[in-house]
This record gives sequence, C-alpha cells and structure tokens, in this order.
Amino acid sequence: MDSALVESGERRIGWAARAMPVLTAIGARFAAERPLEGLRVAACLHVTAETAVLMGALKAGGAEIALAASNPLSTQDDVAAALADYGIAVHARAGVDRDAYYRHIHQALDIAPAVVLDDGCDLVNILHTERTELLDGVLGGCEETTTGIIRLRQMAAEEALRFPMVAVNDTRTKRMFDNRYGTGQSTVDGIMRATNTLLAGKTVVVAGFGYCGRGVAERARGLGARVVVTEIDPVKALDASLQGYDVRPMAGAAREGDVFVTVTGNRDVIRGEHLAVMKDGAILANAGHFDVEIDVRALDELAQAVHRGVRPNTDEYVLADGRRLLLLAEGRLVNLTAAEGHPAAVMDMSFSAQALAVAWLVRERPSGLEPGVYDVPEEVDVEVARLKLAAAGIEVDDLTPEQERYLHSWRAGS
Amino acid sequence: MDSALVESGERRIGWAARAMPVLTAIGARFAAERPLEGLRVAACLHVTAETAVLMGALKAGGAEIALAASNPLSTQDDVAAALADYGIAVHARAGVDRDAYYRHIHQALDIAPAVVLDDGCDLVNILHTERTELLDGVLGGCEETTTGIIRLRQMAAEEALRFPMVAVNDTRTKRMFDNRYGTGQSTVDGIMRATNTLLAGKTVVVAGFGYCGRGVAERARGLGARVVVTEIDPVKALDASLQGYDVRPMAGAAREGDVFVTVTGNRDVIRGEHLAVMKDGAILANAGHFDVEIDVRALDELAQAVHRGVRPNTDEYVLADGRRLLLLAEGRLVNLTAAEGHPAAVMDMSFSAQALAVAWLVRERPSGLEPGVYDVPEEVDVEVARLKLAAAGIEVDDLTPEQERYLHSWRAGS
Amino acid sequence: MDSALVESGERRIGWAARAMPVLTAIGARFAAERPLEGLRVAACLHVTAETAVLMGALKAGGAEIALAASNPLSTQDDVAAALADYGIAVHARAGVDRDAYYRHIHQALDIAPAVVLDDGCDLVNILHTERTELLDGVLGGCEETTTGIIRLRQMAAEEALRFPMVAVNDTRTKRMFDNRYGTGQSTVDGIMRATNTLLAGKTVVVAGFGYCGRGVAERARGLGARVVVTEIDPVKALDASLQGYDVRPMAGAAREGDVFVTVTGNRDVIRGEHLAVMKDGAILANAGHFDVEIDVRALDELAQAVHRGVRPNTDEYVLADGRRLLLLAEGRLVNLTAAEGHPAAVMDMSFSAQALAVAWLVRERPSGLEPGVYDVPEEVDVEVARLKLAAAGIEVDDLTPEQERYLHSWRAGS
Amino acid sequence: MDSALVESGERRIGWAARAMPVLTAIGARFAAERPLEGLRVAACLHVTAETAVLMGALKAGGAEIALAASNPLSTQDDVAAALADYGIAVHARAGVDRDAYYRHIHQALDIAPAVVLDDGCDLVNILHTERTELLDGVLGGCEETTTGIIRLRQMAAEEALRFPMVAVNDTRTKRMFDNRYGTGQSTVDGIMRATNTLLAGKTVVVAGFGYCGRGVAERARGLGARVVVTEIDPVKALDASLQGYDVRPMAGAAREGDVFVTVTGNRDVIRGEHLAVMKDGAILANAGHFDVEIDVRALDELAQAVHRGVRPNTDEYVLADGRRLLLLAEGRLVNLTAAEGHPAAVMDMSFSAQALAVAWLVRERPSGLEPGVYDVPEEVDVEVARLKLAAAGIEVDDLTPEQERYLHSWRAGS
Repeated sequence: MDSALVESGERRIGWAARAMPVLTAIGARFAAERPLEGLRVAACLHVTAETAVLMGALKAGGAEIALAASNPLSTQDDVAAALADYGIAVHARAGVDRDAYYRHIHQALDIAPAVVLDDGCDLVNILHTERTELLDGVLGGCEETTTGIIRLRQMAAEEALRFPMVAVNDTRTKRMFDNRYGTGQSTVDGIMRATNTLLAGKTVVVAGFGYCGRGVAERARGLGARVVVTEIDPVKALDASLQGYDVRPMAGAAREGDVFVTVTGNRDVIRGEHLAVMKDGAILANAGHFDVEIDVRALDELAQAVHRGVRPNTDEYVLADGRRLLLLAEGRLVNLTAAEGHPAAVMDMSFSAQALAVAWLVRERPSGLEPGVYDVPEEVDVEVARLKLAAAGIEVDDLTPEQERYLHSWRAGS
Repeated sequence: MDSALVESGERRIGWAARAMPVLTAIGARFAAERPLEGLRVAACLHVTAETAVLMGALKAGGAEIALAASNPLSTQDDVAAALADYGIAVHARAGVDRDAYYRHIHQALDIAPAVVLDDGCDLVNILHTERTELLDGVLGGCEETTTGIIRLRQMAAEEALRFPMVAVNDTRTKRMFDNRYGTGQSTVDGIMRATNTLLAGKTVVVAGFGYCGRGVAERARGLGARVVVTEIDPVKALDASLQGYDVRPMAGAAREGDVFVTVTGNRDVIRGEHLAVMKDGAILANAGHFDVEIDVRALDELAQAVHRGVRPNTDEYVLADGRRLLLLAEGRLVNLTAAEGHPAAVMDMSFSAQALAVAWLVRERPSGLEPGVYDVPEEVDVEVARLKLAAAGIEVDDLTPEQERYLHSWRAGS
Repeated sequence: MDSALVESGERRIGWAARAMPVLTAIGARFAAERPLEGLRVAACLHVTAETAVLMGALKAGGAEIALAASNPLSTQDDVAAALADYGIAVHARAGVDRDAYYRHIHQALDIAPAVVLDDGCDLVNILHTERTELLDGVLGGCEETTTGIIRLRQMAAEEALRFPMVAVNDTRTKRMFDNRYGTGQSTVDGIMRATNTLLAGKTVVVAGFGYCGRGVAERARGLGARVVVTEIDPVKALDASLQGYDVRPMAGAAREGDVFVTVTGNRDVIRGEHLAVMKDGAILANAGHFDVEIDVRALDELAQAVHRGVRPNTDEYVLADGRRLLLLAEGRLVNLTAAEGHPAAVMDMSFSAQALAVAWLVRERPSGLEPGVYDVPEEVDVEVARLKLAAAGIEVDDLTPEQERYLHSWRAGS
Repeated sequence: MDSALVESGERRIGWAARAMPVLTAIGARFAAERPLEGLRVAACLHVTAETAVLMGALKAGGAEIALAASNPLSTQDDVAAALADYGIAVHARAGVDRDAYYRHIHQALDIAPAVVLDDGCDLVNILHTERTELLDGVLGGCEETTTGIIRLRQMAAEEALRFPMVAVNDTRTKRMFDNRYGTGQSTVDGIMRATNTLLAGKTVVVAGFGYCGRGVAERARGLGARVVVTEIDPVKALDASLQGYDVRPMAGAAREGDVFVTVTGNRDVIRGEHLAVMKDGAILANAGHFDVEIDVRALDELAQAVHRGVRPNTDEYVLADGRRLLLLAEGRLVNLTAAEGHPAAVMDMSFSAQALAVAWLVRERPSGLEPGVYDVPEEVDVEVARLKLAAAGIEVDDLTPEQERYLHSWRAGS
C-alpha cells in the first residue's frame, strides 16, 4: 500500500466530509445503532471522495462492502487506496480499459451481495445476465442515475427484474438538487477547466431539458451565455421556451452553437449530419451518463487529423474543410472527467438518501418487497432536506394547529 | 340585454381568442365532431373572456351550459352579457355579496348537470351537501385549482366524493405554465397596477414556494427585487435556498418585507403577530385562491383608521403607532382583482386540457370510472403542448429509430 | 375650480410623496432656508403627481412657478387642478392638440423666467427661436432627458445656446436609476396594461441598448421573454451580446419579434421595410422621448383598416395580407401613456437632483457660469444617493484612515 | 533552452491566439505596416499566453521588447520559454520571491524603453524613483489596471508623473468587458477549482461594486448564490440594491458569508474584526490587483494552526475557538492563481486596445503629448468592438441619412 497515496486520499475524503454534514450525522447514528450488521453490499459507483464518505457510513452501520467503479475515467486512485486501507474491498483504477472495467464489477459481485448499489445499472445488468447464481441472495438495491432507472423500469416491464430496486434518482432531493444544481455547476466547471473559454456572449446548445439539462442551461445563462435548447418532449420544450430559451431542432442549433452539451440519456444526439454544419472551433461536451450521446465514431470518420490534448481533456478534430471541432473528455461525462463531479454538498443529499434507503430495505426485509422499482419513501426525502437545512442554519415555518386543521378539512368554504 | 355591453364583451372575448390558438383549434374540431352532443354542464369559473372561449368550445361540441362565478370580484359583466347573448345561462354579476354568490351556484346546478367544472371546489361541495338529489346524474367533472384538489382529495380519502373528478390542476402543462408563468406575471402586474411601486431594490416576501410561489418569486426577482421565501416544507425550502433566495420563517421576514405575497393554499399565513412588526408602508397582497391567507380580521383589529381606495384596489390601514399597512384587493386574489388574471395565452393551455378532459370523461362513460381524483391522461398533456408549440412556430426533434430502440432496451451497456 | 378634481389630485400627490422621502426632506430644508426666494421658474415637464412634489419643494424654497406639459398625453388633470389650487400657474390639459401644446409653453414662458426646467428641450428651443426677448433674464436651467441633452449639446456646439443648462439626465443617479430601473419597469408595465400579453416565451425586440434600453431588456428577460437587441453602436452591441442577448440588425429582428420596443432617441427605427415582414399580432411600443421612433405614417399607409382601441391604448392595423399589427399609445411614450410613468421612488432621485441643481445655479449666479451644458456636481449625486439609502435603511462602509491614506498614496508597492 | 517547455508554451499561445481574432488581425496589419520599427518597449505584465500574443503583435510591428512579470505567481514558465525562443527578452519565473520580482523589473528597464506597458504601476513607479536616468527617453506608456490608474492619477496630481500614460483600463471595452466579464468568470472559476464548493445556496459576499465587483456578483448569482454587496460609495451601493443585492456593511456581512471576494482596489477590506465573527468553513478570496485587501497578517495572528494546501491553492487557518477559515491563493489574485486569469477572448479586446494605443503614442510623438493620464481615443475603442463583433459574426444597424441628420439637428420638435 502506497502510504502517500492513502494519505492524499484521506485528506480528500476529509475535505468532502466537511461539506457532507447530513451523511456524517447519519454515519454517526449508524455507528451507534448498527442497523446493517453483517450486511454484504456490492457497489458500482464513481470512486470519489464523496462515495468514500457513503462507504464509511455504511461500514459504520455494520456492512461489509465491495466496490467497483461505475466509470473507468472517474476513479480517484488515492481515494481508492484510502478506502482499501480502511477495510473496504476496492476494485477500481483510473483509466482502465473495457475488459478491466467489467472484470472489476465481477470481482465486486464475488462478495455475494445482499444489497447492491448501482450507478447506471451495469452491475444489476451483469447480475441478471452473467451472475444469475447470485440473484437469490439479493435483498434489493439502489440505483443512482436517470439512465439506470430507465433500464430498470424496462427490465421490470419485461418482468426480468428479480428484486426490489429503490430509484434514489427519483427522490425530489436527488432530482432537484443533485441533477439540477450538481450537474449544472460541475458541467460548466468542466468546460471552463478544459477550455478556459469565456461563456459570456457564447451560444451554448443544451440538448435535453430534464433536471440535468435545466441545471446546465441555468448555469450557462448565469455565466452570460445565450442558451439554445433542443428537446423531443413537447411539454419540456414548451417549458424551456417559457423560460426564455431559444428552442429548436438540433439541425438548426448545430449551425449556431459555440458550445454543445448533451444531457438526454439517449444516444447519437449529435450525429454526423450535425457535425457537418458546425462552426469552426465548436466545443462538444457530454454530461449524460453514457458516452453515446455524441457520435464520436462519426466525428472520427469526418476528421482528417486528430490532435489529442490541445488542452487538458480536449481533443481537436480537424475536418476536411479546415474546421476544427473540440471534443471534451472523449465524449464521456465532462463534469466528472474535466472537473471533479458533483460538489460534495450535493452528493451529501443523494448519498444520504442512499444510506437511509439501504436501512429501509433491511427494515422491510421481513415483509418481503416484490421485485420492481420503488420510490424512496417520502419521509426519507423530507428527513434529508430537514437535516440539510439545519446544517445550513435555515429555519422554516411550522403549521399552526388551525392551519393543520384547515389543510385537512374540505368543508371550509370560500 | 344591453347591446353595448354585449358588444364590449364580444370584443374582449375576440381579443382573448387570438391568444388562445389551441382552444380555438379544439373548438373547431368539436364543432365538426360534436362529441358533447346534448351534454348538460354546470360550471363555476371566473367569468372572464378566457372562460368564455372555453364555454364556446364546449357549446360548439354540443353541450348545454350553465355558468356561475367562482369569485364575486372577478366577473366581467360585459363578458357575461355576451355569453348570455350566445345562449349560455350565466348566473354572475360583478361585486355581488355572499348570498348572491351561493344563490348563483345553486342556479347553475339547476341545470341538473352530467358534467361539472369547478374552480375551488365550491360547486362540488354544495352538490355533496345541499343538492345531493343531483348526485346520481353526474358523470364526472374537472377541478382547476390547487386548493380545490386538496379539498377533493380529502373528500376522496373520507369516501365522501361520489363521482370521478379530473385534477386539471395537476397536469404538467397546468402546473408548470398556468401556475408558474400565469400567476407569476399577473401577480406582479396586479401589484404594479394597484400601487405603481418600483419593485427594483424592494424586499418582496413570497409565502409558499409551490409552482405559483415559484412563479411569483421569479417575476419579482426579474423585476429587480430581493426575494425572501417562507415555507413549511423542508424540500421546497431547500430548493428555494439553492435558487439563491433568502429563506426564513415569517416571524423574521415580517420585519424586512416591503411587499408581501401569500400563495400557500393555507390560512392565516400573515397573522397579527406578523402585522405587529411590519415596516411603515408595507404592501400586503394575496395570490392564493381563497381570501384567508392574510388575516384581514386581525388587521382590522389593529387598525385605528382605514382609508379605502387610496389607490385602485388599495386600502390603507393606519395602526396605533402611526405605521400604515396597505392591503390590496381586500386580501382576495390580487392578480384577478387588481390586474386581469392569467393572460389568455396561459389559460389557452389549461382550458384546452379542460376541454379535452371533458371529452375524455364522456368517452370513458361506458367503462364507468370509479369515484376519485384522476390525473389528466398523459396524452392530453402532450397534445396540448404540441398544439401550443405549433402555434408558436417552434419545432422539436423526433427520435430516430435507433434512439427509440435505445430507450427501450435495457441491455445496452456502458 | 372643481374641488373633487383638486381632492383627487391631492390624494395622488400625497401617495407619490410617500415614495419620495428624499425630495420631501429637501423640500423641508428649502422651507426653512428659502434659497429660491423670489426666483421665477418656467417648467415644461410631464404634469404628474411626482412633478407636483418637485413643484412643491421649489415653491417651499420661495420660487414662483409656471408649468406647462412636456407631453400632451401624460397630463393628469386632477394633479394640474391641485397644483393650481396650491398657487402654481399650470398651463396643461390632457389630450390637447399640437397648437394648444405650444401655446401652453408660451404661456409658461410669459412668467419671464430666471430658471427653466425642461424635459425634451422644447421650452428651451422656443426660448431661443420665438421668445428671444426673454433670453437675457435667464440665469440657467435643467434638462431631464437624453433626447434633450443631445439637442442642447448640438446647440452648444453651434454656439447657439445662450445660458448654462445642467444635464440632470447625465448624473449617475438619473442614468442608472431613472433611465434603467424606471423606464425598464414602467415600459413592461405599460405593455402589460395595454395588452395583458404573457411575456414569458415571447420574443421581445429592444431597439437601443443605452441605459433605458438596458432597463427594458432586463425587465423583459426578467419576465421570461427571449430578448433580441438592435444597436448602431458597436460597443453597446458587444455589451448586449456579452450579457447573453441576441444582437442583430432590425431587418432580421423584424421577422422574429412578438413585441417591439424602441428606445433609441432616434427616428424611424421601425420603418415600412420592417413592418412589411413582421408576424401577425406583433405589438409595437415606443419608450423613447419623441413619437418618431416608429414610423406611424408608414404603418398608416400599409394598413387597409385601423381599429382604434381594441384594448386600452391599443390600435390594430390590418394589412393587405391580413396580418394585424398592434400599435400602443399611438407610438408615444408607452410607459407614460399606457402605465403611469416612472414610479415615484425613481423620480424621487432625479427630481431631488433637479431641486439641488436649481439651488446650485442660484448659488453660482454671482460667479457667472458660461453658457453651455453642465454636469450635475458630483456631490449633488452622492448626496441624493446617501439620502435615498438612509430612507431605505441601508448602511454602507466608511473608509478607515489607513484606507483613506492608501487610496491617496501612489508609493505603496505590490 | 528546454525545447519541450518551448513547445508546450507555443501550444498554449496558439490556443490563446485562436480566441484572439482581433489582436491577430492587428498583428497582421502591424507586420505589413511596421509602425513600431525599432521601438524599445519595456513591459511589466502577467506572463501568460494572452500576453504573448500581444508581445507577438508588437514585435511584428517592429518593436524590440523586454518583459518582466507583474505578479510572481502568475508566470507560465512554458510561455516565458516560448517567448524567449521567439526573440523577446523575458525576465520572469513562476514563484520567485520579492527580491527577484523587483530585480526582473529592473532588468526589463535595462532596455532603456521608449514605451512602457504596465499592469499595476510597479514598473512606472520604479522608473520614477530608482531609475530616473531613463525618464528622458520615455515617450509614454499604457497602464492596464484600475489600481495602476489610481496610482498614476495621484502621481499626476502631485506633478510627479513625467510622461503621458494611456489609461487602457478606462476604455469602455476594457471596463465593461475585461473587468466585468473577464474578472467575473475567472474569479468564480478560481474559487471552484480551488474548493469545488457548490455555489448554489451559498451566501457570497462581494466587497466592492465597481466593474469587477459587478462581474463577480453577477456570476455568483448566476451560479445560484445569494449575493451580499459591501461598498463605500453611496451611488454604487444604491445601484447594487436596485439590482436586488443585499447591501450592508462588512461588519454585518462577515457573520453571514460562506464565501468572501474582495475586489475594491483598497487595503484591509477584511480585517481582524471581521475574521473574528466569520462562520466555520468560510472561504476568503481576493480578486483585486494587490494582495492587501484581505489582512493576511491579522489572519496569521488569529490562527492557532495553518494547514497549507488542504486543496489546491487553499490554506486552512484554524482559530482558537476551532473555527476554520480557508484562504485562497494566499490572498493574491484568485482568478490568476487558482484559475487561468481572463479567458483569451476577453484579453483580446484589452490587449488590442493596448496595441493600438502604442501605435497612437508613436504617431502622436511629433506633437509632443504633455505628461498626464490619457484616455484611449474613442475611435480605438469603437474599432476594437467593431473587429470583435465581426469575428463573432454579429451585425449591427447603420444609421440612415435621415437618422444621421436627425441626431445632428436640434431644431426638430416634438
């Protein structure tokens, strides 16, 4: 074990923990109550300092943990070292190839988990296809991302899902805060670190106006950009329009954009036909979970030359007509690769929901939850928000008894 | 019939219809297909030009209609005259007292409705308490407001509700657009018309951060105000805080505010204890459905003198210590009373959903819907948004076949 | 004298005075010190409640005043009646024609003024062309508008200006606050009162990005509009672009706009060639001083029919191809005609500067200021801001002695 | 010469040059016209890639250049190497101490300059105090910063300044764009890189509301922060208040802030008395030119322990009561130290003005400009903006002959 690496990882984790007062409080409660005593957990998450604080809380609660990385590029090796030193089985290393990525997931599954934590549904997918012998032992799990939920719901619809999964992504706290504020800030942060481009006055095209897209659009506008939104859902498109954004199809937006950010959960959002009409110097970034939103293969085919690393995490593709397109982070998550992912303050909320959801799964075990996708119980959500406000020193009003009565009585007239 | 009044009403309705292309298109389709042939409808809605366009669409579809006002102060008498001239039974007059208000609802119910349209649940309430003989004939109905939905859900929970009610308020189009953008703009509009106060630099306290409150907060901030939010829900409070608003209890906000807007759906949000500490010249406005959010009785008790109409829709309360508090619209809906309610463009969407929901109720009649509160079917919502975008000349992207497949396949890996 | 009218005017003035604590304080000081004893003042200003408070302060200081209206449409007759009752010679009536307008200015000049107050330079212009016999008696004056300053500087450049004029418009307080915040809010207010249109999601074209244009653009954006800016000055255009606005020539903007606001100080900003390509239902409003920014003659020529008053202050022009264009306030100042002009809180600052500038002119009389356009002395500006902050209960920092020294010493190194 | 370093520097300069189309165009013109043939230039500027593009343009124009660093922390060693390789005498190295810093300035002065370029006035100061033998040879110079201008004006007032200095900082393009947009973005960028803190929901205290402070406040708000402004100038304070910011003295703000940014041009803006009441975890950053705005000595005295580098460019000061304060970049310019300074797109404008101003000084030489502080000629400003708009593909309107006439005729009436 490289002790300098461990120390660096511990410092990083300590820094993150400061901005995670809610999860820290839950960890302290877990340490006292040991609600997860002996529980085997397999997790496939970004191996970052914030994840480490979650792992610490679960371990404090009594869990035994094996951790793989949910993305080959986001692993912080020093954090991995510190976690290993703390007694957690970590199967992750920055920059590994596809084979090693999947091998690591298998290694994490070797723990024969009772609970799984997933971020994009790869671990759950492998469990249902290549490691079916482990399925009977699984009590349930949590999924962190929109993309993962889509896949889980599809599995449930096909009756392929074999245990209950809590859609941590679908809590109000996760969707509003993590997706909107976390992805919003870290995506523009990643673009600035990679390119140092001035966003004021630039045209930023945001593909997708879900919670994440909304966050990116708000931050880009907040930095002075003119924002164009593309969508496929008429309701979201209308919402974007009513918030003053330009809304148009990608075919038109492609000609105008200085910076493009995909955040749709879908594939090939920026395709060859779009690349063909972009301006010289256009910057392409992806903030969606998988690296399929920008068709990098089409970009490779169009390019006469590729200059890797003209800036950190920035590759320049020179097209036949001389135009240069700049691809950030190889089309992978720009906020994790070029910046540091969600600020710890954001992860504090979604990981706290995750920790409480694991405890809830264990508590519900006797009643035997059916396989399917579950919402995080409302009270978990409210509890997380309440703890977060308390940590920030913000007070809210309480209902008076008359108000409580009023809200529950339909007989009061106008 | 006063023909000048009719003409004035028709001009107003014509103006509104221009900004309601979606409802106009639906009316044209209804006129061709007559899906509501012979249907008796009792409606309790604000008697405004936009409502008149909805009434016209339903009548074009074959319905027979009786209309009462959902608020004594919002009735536009010329619109009422024009509707009567058009063959709709209107029971409404501006400024009537409480007795006449309820008498009008009874008169509308005398039509023995198969479908009811409500805005605040008063008509449905009376139907269940004083006109129970009519209940068997009712196929179902629609409710327009948050307040009404709260009352209906309570009735449903107590098994008191006797027919299906569609929660038009809960569609995405209604909540996002009507509540947020419509209430937002019309509330600040009402405050400006009543007081002509400069909002830039003022502290505006918004009580409640639901969709309506968010809209008011955004518009107040957009006009240069510093906005303070009060809430009882920790999740909404946290959201407000992450959007950069000051969040605090009303006890503290009361000392700071130059303008107060209540929009909570609850009562006594501003009480005597708050009035007691407000600044000289503070402006009090309510944008919630009922006139119970500001405790006007407490204000009356504190006041040594009241000067009515110091500005349009503005009453000045002089307290014992010389401070003057300004109550707008007697604590009733400031956006309807001091301004003109939601712009027609907004009502276009919620009233289109209302029209399509009535047609849906009729289509579902054979299958016999259970009593309860129903969401507007998702396709109605999407249809409304699609028509609205088309009217605004805005295009969205379509999924490619590959994208369609991708979204439906959980087997695709990272 | 119509006493009901007087009373209504007094109530209006009283309301305005509340929001004008700075001018009220100056009036009290003037009443004690009588710095304007016996001074004859001819004023050509919008005859509104806020102007009345200024007239009151000057009269309290000892001045004898004759007042004409600077715009035939903005006169509030009740305020005029109240001022007359208070002993000020008022020559103004709402809605008079061009002849009466000029006759009124002549009548005000009949007082043989020592000081003139102008708003658009018409009074000063007449003084230099038709009433030259009065020139020798004039000590100096103040001009309130950008338009007026342009004309005065031109006169000064041609050596035609015969006395000193203080450019009240050019103080920081006037430009930043009155132009930007006052015109901004009152312009969108006027558009909403006239049309009740939903601004969210609309494309608002703002012609001119001076202080006024910036204010209008900010408020339109703050109400959810997508804002397009047109300019002739590259520096201002670049600034607009860096603030995230779309910048383009009017030829292009004309095709996109739902609402147009001219605020350039120039003529024919919207011409026949632009009207020819606008969308059906486009709304045209002017917020510049003179009614020359929209070429109304061209609009008249293009129109097949004109429907006056389809909404308050809204005329509909039907073009040959069926498109309908809506002209607000006949192309005159929309914020004064369709709304109530600047909120009193804004006028408090510019009128306070005006009052202090008059006192300064009187004080400087012995030293004999040369003819020319003068800036308001910096200390007047700071004094107004300081009084305004005090009224709002806002404190600022003071320099420590070390800081004072630091700012004055160039020898301190890095 | 380390060729890898040179290559890295060239890549960096090439990247910057892409975002500097205006300066590139001027460089091409200079190469053709050689307006600076044989001119000796001594520059004291941040040794960054953008500065290198300016040096290249001047050298292309015929100048002979010696360059020292204006800040020991901002030097990019690879850029210095590339410049040296290109034939420019560079006296700079990252991280040198105070002695070396001043020695480098002396070395640059050894060229016996005809023109000086300064950034903070240190070089000009030394010239007037320690190298007076060189004064007679100096034709004039340019100063880039607000701080430097303050010092120069003071020198001019004391008649100590011996040659003309162009206040490049005071052009509209520099003040509006570089100060506001450049400092704004790069400061929040620096804070995010140093701390990865979530700004949404945080209270950010901005000390100073000049152009730079305004930029920082806008960006912080745009990232979701609640912004508190402190000021000493009542007019700026009022402006901040009317833009919806909380304005208060530092004594009060100190208790509330999560993040502090000083950008005043003054010293000791955050003092011991403020540090004593701050919240645990408060972040302190300076974006003013000199490292005197935060009283680091007071912080050192209050601290029981200091942990350097808990994050990049972040030192933690632990106070006696356990509170931890985080000082970024040792109190030096956070945007240059923790991020990469102004984006090249911004520097393009101020450095283009700089290049054109040098050419203007040379052209004006025969007429012998008096010593003093000069504004950049208006046409330079307009030329820079025009070139910038052209590079961005943005068109503006041209005046018609009628409009031109209208603006120049004061006789046109209302």
